[in-house]
Amino acid sequence: MKKVTEDYKRRVKELYEKANIVLSDSELENIDFADFGLDNIEKEALNLVVYINNERYCAKEMVLLPNQTCPEHLHPDLENKEGKQETFRCRWGKVYLYVEGEELKPDEISVTLPQENNQYYTAGKEFVLLPGEQYTINPKTKHWFQAGPEGAVISEFSSPSYDEYDIFTNPNVKREVRDR
Amino acid sequence: MKKVTEDYKRRVKELYEKANIVLSDSELENIDFADFGLDNIEKEALNLVVYINNERYCAKEMVLLPNQTCPEHLHPDLENKEGKQETFRCRWGKVYLYVEGEELKPDEISVTLPQENNQYYTAGKEFVLLPGEQYTINPKTKHWFQAGPEGAVISEFSSPSYDEYDIFTNPNVKREVRDR
Repeated sequence: MKKVTEDYKRRVKELYEKANIVLSDSELENIDFADFGLDNIEKEALNLVVYINNERYCAKEMVLLPNQTCPEHLHPDLENKEGKQETFRCRWGKVYLYVEGEELKPDEISVTLPQENNQYYTAGKEFVLLPGEQYTINPKTKHWFQAGPEGAVISEFSSPSYDEYDIFTNPNVKREVRDR
Repeated sequence: MKKVTEDYKRRVKELYEKANIVLSDSELENIDFADFGLDNIEKEALNLVVYINNERYCAKEMVLLPNQTCPEHLHPDLENKEGKQETFRCRWGKVYLYVEGEELKPDEISVTLPQENNQYYTAGKEFVLLPGEQYTINPKTKHWFQAGPEGAVISEFSSPSYDEYDIFTNPNVKREVRDR
């Protein structure tokens, strides 16, 4: 992972503050600024705090900067474990969520794909989540999401996370996992 | 359950607002004002919104009015299911959480027990949670909790909820369950 700038970190923390999400000092120190090894952090990344990830459930608080995109991926079944199921709840801002099930037509969706890697986005069923709205993504289902023009703060409630096994559409993704 | 007054409902909703928790219209209409059949709602109750409760995980947003107490209970193992494990995260206000493991000495804890039913509180290990602080309660462990003088808003992340099987220390509790 390339060095994340202080300015970038500040902008992420500002969104947690705007959403009135209170984090402990230790959580603030340990925000995961995940750039997925793509060297495109302003456009493709995900910023997150893992509140709890045990053998039974997981909860995270995620931030996307304005128009920032979390790259397309799915959560596969693992040996003796069903793939991760997750509920996204928008807390602040706006999030555009795209789920497998309809062909992605870049000219017909509400957002602009990250230009550098647009060939690695395929899921086209669009859901728009405003604060207080949520959507549950089934295991083994490709999905990606992009914040609206002000950014987004999203709670994730889920079965346990094993992020190191996530399958990304973009073969160049390298996920450094810190939450387990 | 006795009829809940409009004033009571208003005070609960005000705390969600103070904590900047955005709820959908449907969630606001369906807040569970649980009085546990004790006819003591100002002192013993729990107010909650269930965001998601599926076969794999559960998430709720709970409100306690100032000094209101959720009565002592535990989550037992069920046929083929381990008892519920839950993480409480304080979002706003202050919550005093008492967990089995130390004898309850009413004169030595930080809060006053609900006088009408004080004999039904036994767990005495005290944890004080401020915003951004959290605690995970193991299955089959008696616990109860009381808000501080301004009330509390608490996120609960957990394994699936089967509230109808909760075991309360007070035999007079009747839990009308609406979340499954």
